[in-house]
Amino acid sequence: MALIVQKFGGSSVKDAERVMNVARIVTDTYKAGNQVVVVVSAQGDTTDDLIAKAKEINGKASKREMDMLMSAGEQISIALLAMACEKLGCPAKSLLGWQAGFNTSSVYGSARIKKLRTERIKVELENKNIVIVAGFQGICKYDDITTLGRGGSDTSAVAIAAAMHADRCQIFTDVEGVYTADPRKIPNAKKLKEITYDEMLELATLGAQVLNNRSVEMAKKYNVQLEVLSSYTNKPGTLVKEVTKMEKMLIRGVTKDTDVARISILGVPDIPGIAFKIFGKLAAQNINVDIILQSVGRDGTKDIAFTVSKANGPAALEALKGIDVISDFEMKCDTNVAKVSVVGAGMETHPGTASTMFEALYSADINIQMISTSEIKISVLIDAADADQAVAVVHRAFFPEEDNN
Amino acid sequence: MALIVQKFGGSSVKDAERVMNVARIVTDTYKAGNQVVVVVSAQGDTTDDLIAKAKEINGKASKREMDMLMSAGEQISIALLAMACEKLGCPAKSLLGWQAGFNTSSVYGSARIKKLRTERIKVELENKNIVIVAGFQGICKYDDITTLGRGGSDTSAVAIAAAMHADRCQIFTDVEGVYTADPRKIPNAKKLKEITYDEMLELATLGAQVLNNRSVEMAKKYNVQLEVLSSYTNKPGTLVKEVTKMEKMLIRGVTKDTDVARISILGVPDIPGIAFKIFGKLAAQNINVDIILQSVGRDGTKDIAFTVSKANGPAALEALKGIDVISDFEMKCDTNVAKVSVVGAGMETHPGTASTMFEALYSADINIQMISTSEIKISVLIDAADADQAVAVVHRAFFPEEDNN
Repeated sequence: MALIVQKFGGSSVKDAERVMNVARIVTDTYKAGNQVVVVVSAQGDTTDDLIAKAKEINGKASKREMDMLMSAGEQISIALLAMACEKLGCPAKSLLGWQAGFNTSSVYGSARIKKLRTERIKVELENKNIVIVAGFQGICKYDDITTLGRGGSDTSAVAIAAAMHADRCQIFTDVEGVYTADPRKIPNAKKLKEITYDEMLELATLGAQVLNNRSVEMAKKYNVQLEVLSSYTNKPGTLVKEVTKMEKMLIRGVTKDTDVARISILGVPDIPGIAFKIFGKLAAQNINVDIILQSVGRDGTKDIAFTVSKANGPAALEALKGIDVISDFEMKCDTNVAKVSVVGAGMETHPGTASTMFEALYSADINIQMISTSEIKISVLIDAADADQAVAVVHRAFFPEEDNN
Repeated sequence: MALIVQKFGGSSVKDAERVMNVARIVTDTYKAGNQVVVVVSAQGDTTDDLIAKAKEINGKASKREMDMLMSAGEQISIALLAMACEKLGCPAKSLLGWQAGFNTSSVYGSARIKKLRTERIKVELENKNIVIVAGFQGICKYDDITTLGRGGSDTSAVAIAAAMHADRCQIFTDVEGVYTADPRKIPNAKKLKEITYDEMLELATLGAQVLNNRSVEMAKKYNVQLEVLSSYTNKPGTLVKEVTKMEKMLIRGVTKDTDVARISILGVPDIPGIAFKIFGKLAAQNINVDIILQSVGRDGTKDIAFTVSKANGPAALEALKGIDVISDFEMKCDTNVAKVSVVGAGMETHPGTASTMFEALYSADINIQMISTSEIKISVLIDAADADQAVAVVHRAFFPEEDNN
């Protein structure tokens, strides 16, 4: 008898039919003799609908009340899924975040899990119940409802799997696994049988949108074996784990991220401390900076450019206005850019990876604006209009068409 | 500084505009220097929508899961109302049933409040917050969410007022108070300035639908001063309390209840124990019986008739089939009936009340099928088609048109 944690996102439970479909997956796993803990997100557009309701009343509502509001979404979906499991003849109990033991920090809207008390889940499992837990939510030391932020349901699932030493944590999505590129756009994209945590982390960060980043970090830390698979088809997905035997394939995937804004500061005086002033101001405003590029400018000045998320673009410009040495200089925010990356743990020992990528882009006449590299990825910033073509040509360079099996 | 408990039903918070309206009433009370605890129901049709969602998946869902589902409705409305109060510049905190300290029995779907721990409410009030509590819900000893059953928000409000010794408990509805008859149908109906708990209880039971019955019982027990008033107009409503000075008016109101089915059993053998068998069977099925009438039949038999709610009609017939002495006799269930009642604490010392009522019905050619009386009410069962006319003529008999001030 294995303990399996299964997580289903909002689109997997968006209506009665989809809820019944999920219930079939869950009860099949249960009937096969496993203990099953299920984590569910809010149905379809529920979260967005609730946000819209709030905005109609108060565009600046407190985060505490937003958490109170939003957490109702998962409450509805867990109850409906429990009813669906009952309908299929299996005993099921739904648990809210606080009932399932999720103690979090009191940072409303983006709380961190501090402790997971699994007593209640264990009791319900011992009583032969399928346990259905509301993802994305917990309770803080003030006995207030908190939410973990968007994508938090993945984290909820991994946390349960880690705390209970589950045999596997299955993340059901609307794709069949992790691919070398977006399969809707690159027909030649391959589904990976397995991938390491670090590679998955890079892919998650880079916009592959399969798994929430924090959940992969947590899975790595507690060595939780993740499986990404589809709730629509009955096929094996992609395993995320510490791979010991390295596959031949160097590159795990090619990704695109269009939620990027590039801030350029031109003609900054070439004096010490300027970088600290700039990035200190941004850090103070909680603005995450991704790629940073500093180049020598003309006449004893330098140019500094960096990328932030699109939403943070205006705030970044605002934050920089306060720096005296910058105020007179030219600042630009360009949101018409995209980041394309190749990811793979094997690339560090194969110096040809970067040149293969750059050659592919050059052959397609795509201009590279910025470059950033790490041990397991290479990212380039290019014009947004070129992004899809860039993914296609780079993917083809690493996965030639004739290699299609 | 007074402590005021205010309760708003679902129609009072059905959309953003109505939520803002309620927030204005609440914040005005707060700004006048009062401590305010607000109890809110789910928005408009939310509860019905959630029930429909459940039925689509499982028509026989467990009551535990139904409670989990339904309680999300109030969670949404308390968060939205708190945001609306924030918008109007007043600090507000929403609390779920369990956060507000509602400990209930574990009878899912119709739990009873066992204990109310008011510590959290007190802390939030001391911190100058408007406290907004989810009505209708609590938590049982298994740490499961429970609901108090329909109309439970009234009970939640009265329970808080009782436990915290509130100066007043205001029940906001879509009518301006308690009337001598339904003002939408009887233009001459008068709003009562005050009414006793017992009279209100009779009116609530008889279908006046202004206040939930259990809440009035609780208000009487703990001497909570209730006020029924409108959330749409800014007028004084009706006070429900122990009235010491009896008003001149003997009759408090005329009500109609169409949720009535009459079961008739004709030709029952006139032997001892037959009534016990019948009503024991019904009690075993949890079927409430209202009016009971037993008459002498022909040839050593008797006829027994009684009323139950329409929903209980078929179950009552079914329950009675098991009684051997009845099985061969004629049973009928007539749902085409209505109960019209006059209520007033003064009537017991004024024997003319019944005859005034009966005369009014006789003059309108309305046939009385059954009669039931208590110290403060007289009810008659009549044909459903005559109900509205019956209320009109009886009301006119006690409140002549020329008395309209």
